[in-house]
Amino acid sequence: MKISILGCGVIGAGWAARFLLNGHDVRVFDPSPDVERIMGEVLASCRASLPALYDRALPPAGRLDFAQTAAEAVEGAEWVQESVPERLEVKRRLYAAIEPHLAKEAILASSTSAILPSKLQQLCSVPERLIVAHPFNPVYLVPLVEVVGSDLTPPALKTRAAEILRGIGMHPLVLDREIDGFIGNRLQEAVWRESLWMVRDGVATTAQIDEAILYGFGLRWAQMGQFDTYRLAGGEAGMRRFLEHFGASLADPLTHLMDVPDLDAALIDRIAAQSEAQSGGRTIREMERARDAGLVALIRALKPRQVGAGRTIRAHEAQLRLDRDDGLPITARRVVPSSWIDANGHMNETHYVEIASNAADALTESCGVTADYIAAGRSHFTAETHVRYLAELRQGEEITVRTQVLHGTGKKTHLFHSLYGPDGTLAATVEMMILHVDLNTRTVCEPLPSVASALKSLEEAHARLPLPQGAGQAVRTLSGQAPPERKEALG
Amino acid sequence: MKISILGCGVIGAGWAARFLLNGHDVRVFDPSPDVERIMGEVLASCRASLPALYDRALPPAGRLDFAQTAAEAVEGAEWVQESVPERLEVKRRLYAAIEPHLAKEAILASSTSAILPSKLQQLCSVPERLIVAHPFNPVYLVPLVEVVGSDLTPPALKTRAAEILRGIGMHPLVLDREIDGFIGNRLQEAVWRESLWMVRDGVATTAQIDEAILYGFGLRWAQMGQFDTYRLAGGEAGMRRFLEHFGASLADPLTHLMDVPDLDAALIDRIAAQSEAQSGGRTIREMERARDAGLVALIRALKPRQVGAGRTIRAHEAQLRLDRDDGLPITARRVVPSSWIDANGHMNETHYVEIASNAADALTESCGVTADYIAAGRSHFTAETHVRYLAELRQGEEITVRTQVLHGTGKKTHLFHSLYGPDGTLAATVEMMILHVDLNTRTVCEPLPSVASALKSLEEAHARLPLPQGAGQAVRTLSGQAPPERKEALG
Repeated sequence: MKISILGCGVIGAGWAARFLLNGHDVRVFDPSPDVERIMGEVLASCRASLPALYDRALPPAGRLDFAQTAAEAVEGAEWVQESVPERLEVKRRLYAAIEPHLAKEAILASSTSAILPSKLQQLCSVPERLIVAHPFNPVYLVPLVEVVGSDLTPPALKTRAAEILRGIGMHPLVLDREIDGFIGNRLQEAVWRESLWMVRDGVATTAQIDEAILYGFGLRWAQMGQFDTYRLAGGEAGMRRFLEHFGASLADPLTHLMDVPDLDAALIDRIAAQSEAQSGGRTIREMERARDAGLVALIRALKPRQVGAGRTIRAHEAQLRLDRDDGLPITARRVVPSSWIDANGHMNETHYVEIASNAADALTESCGVTADYIAAGRSHFTAETHVRYLAELRQGEEITVRTQVLHGTGKKTHLFHSLYGPDGTLAATVEMMILHVDLNTRTVCEPLPSVASALKSLEEAHARLPLPQGAGQAVRTLSGQAPPERKEALG
Repeated sequence: MKISILGCGVIGAGWAARFLLNGHDVRVFDPSPDVERIMGEVLASCRASLPALYDRALPPAGRLDFAQTAAEAVEGAEWVQESVPERLEVKRRLYAAIEPHLAKEAILASSTSAILPSKLQQLCSVPERLIVAHPFNPVYLVPLVEVVGSDLTPPALKTRAAEILRGIGMHPLVLDREIDGFIGNRLQEAVWRESLWMVRDGVATTAQIDEAILYGFGLRWAQMGQFDTYRLAGGEAGMRRFLEHFGASLADPLTHLMDVPDLDAALIDRIAAQSEAQSGGRTIREMERARDAGLVALIRALKPRQVGAGRTIRAHEAQLRLDRDDGLPITARRVVPSSWIDANGHMNETHYVEIASNAADALTESCGVTADYIAAGRSHFTAETHVRYLAELRQGEEITVRTQVLHGTGKKTHLFHSLYGPDGTLAATVEMMILHVDLNTRTVCEPLPSVASALKSLEEAHARLPLPQGAGQAVRTLSGQAPPERKEALG
């Protein structure tokens, strides 16, 4: 797809980075002299984090360029994302400049958080192609995007927009009706107002309020929303019991929320000072890096659980394909996430085995050991593994695994994984003996014929290749001996 | 410590479970006939999740018993946690019954979320020992606890209470002043009211609202509160810029919040039905189990980042000690978290290596390869590892690792880890060759004398033991050969 980004602040650049890393060509227009610097910084942050969400490589990145005018930027674009300041007059001038140049089927999506789509449509000569796609910062990591139309918006446009957004790994929440603030910001604003009151009244500092969030309900809300949370609080009787039991307290004078605090200079001063103190002297850039690494770790934690952002990434990852076999099968390709780096500043030894374990799964799955096969009661267990660590791997580096089947007949399968780092350096070899098992008895058994035959074919094809270096090698016992003569693994 | 739990619903039982698994004896009183069942269920949930947050074993659990009266339950207790219904009259009667039996130094802590400590103190003959310790569900996993006193409360009591709560792995947020709803619930109530309006007005369903939370700002809030989040939204100019820029929108008619919705039968019906539909037919118990496993995964993801709940657990874990050496050093003891279980229903092969990697770190740290030593530029890299998988491990099972130093002189150290599962079954052996390196040049070098001498002492002590079975063994190359004769690893 060809994508056009109009307005390249933090939000616009975040959109551009997400589209680029998902393989789409992006053309950016922003009249600011800082546009290339901002785009470069956000793209670097995105490269350092987004690929780390996935256990497969993303497609090759698209091409980025910068247009001199908005009209030039939208030429031929299938998706135009507008993220210019929230002033109607600014948007009106921009829309007038681009509309004659828009492709017939182009979608014009606005990142607005404050203006209703029906109002934006009044600025357009073809209102039916405008939609709101409201993202959350950082756009390249947070999956939520609110998709909002007006009565003029064809339902098919919302569907197509949601499909495109899912294709770049987002979670489109399609609203049934337009409403000021949409859903997410209405909720966040409610918390914000209450927070401002507490700071104004000297009841709590900004740091205390943030602690109450991230050690408490914020942690809960990363995987379960408020209704489900309260449903559980109702115990076995569920939501109805909760509502009947706690409904009464809604009328209690718990909050100031019948009014809005005056955000005067004194309150701004107090919040700015408390917020500065709370940051512990870290720069915004340092905080952003920490935030991104944390989001990656949280989303990765949710992946195996298939919930929230982890579910989004799993669904997206399933669409990513490994390259085709060229000699030995490629059984994994991925980048090193920050959460895999240890105190020595390189990928911890554990994850060489994790990658090899995933590669073995990919290989046996290609031979028919699928989720269905496993659900029907058969699988492989690993009996023995030998790892030679040959080179360090750093955060963000891409790893490719090729797997040779040394033996594939009968109950035992002997695999030899070669892990290649950037530039094709051999980073490790992982030799593995896996046993085909019956999951009910937990004992070794023959694979079903289709799996047996697929493994045998690989064994025969790979038998033409030489035995790889390091196969059949043991850790030499040094006790009471001179150091062994063979080449050092590291160094 | 001896702990008394008065009132054993979901909250009281959660407190009891958290204290028990942190090694304290707990006596429970609740007049309900269901008390033992509820306590048993919550304790089972806690056992299935809390220990999995830690990479070290918790101390041996305390003893649980049930008292026949409240007075009997508080006898000799150092900490009394009251979690009875939120009615002043109920609390008044309870306090009157226990006060004559309280130890002089006992802390009387109330779990109330709705009553100010000054009001509760009016029910007491010794008001100075009452404090509010307001937790969040599930009490045994969420670290936040709000510690609130009144003007009557001695500051030293708040400090002592916070210390005790930190000792059971919680994050005490000590409020400077009492305020209705404390901090956490004021914020949650604000979201709740706005949510109720949206459902009432048919703008959004409960499922859409929950999606907006957990795919968006809830995910962000698991590691960073609202002020820090908005600080970043302000870009390089920080919080002041954000406030000046977005302050104006506070006055926009974004919300209904000048009023409170009427929670009438129709609205209760609608919410209950939507919430039921949203749960996808899962029972409350199933949802609770999924919630707990998710919280474990999220908190574990935050641990290496030292942020929020992960920071709490790290600080707590640092206080947990390994047992003393009895022959071979114990280099790890921990339980299997749910996030380590794979499609085969057992601990994935990766984590045998992760445990061994941690065990090697513990061993070398005990020899002087500390965080400071590493920061000064020296460490160990692993060159080679051989794993024999001998038995499956299941979620919640405890693993103990003992490590034999086969060679400890010079640049190379040869370790042999034995991983024992429940009942002392040998679950795996992990043989490892680690190399002492200079972190600046990334090349092999001699350890500093103190480390060299400590490793040599271990080598000498362990040289008296026989070479362990499996040492020096290779994965046998089966290609073109008959299967090897030696004993199967699994089977």
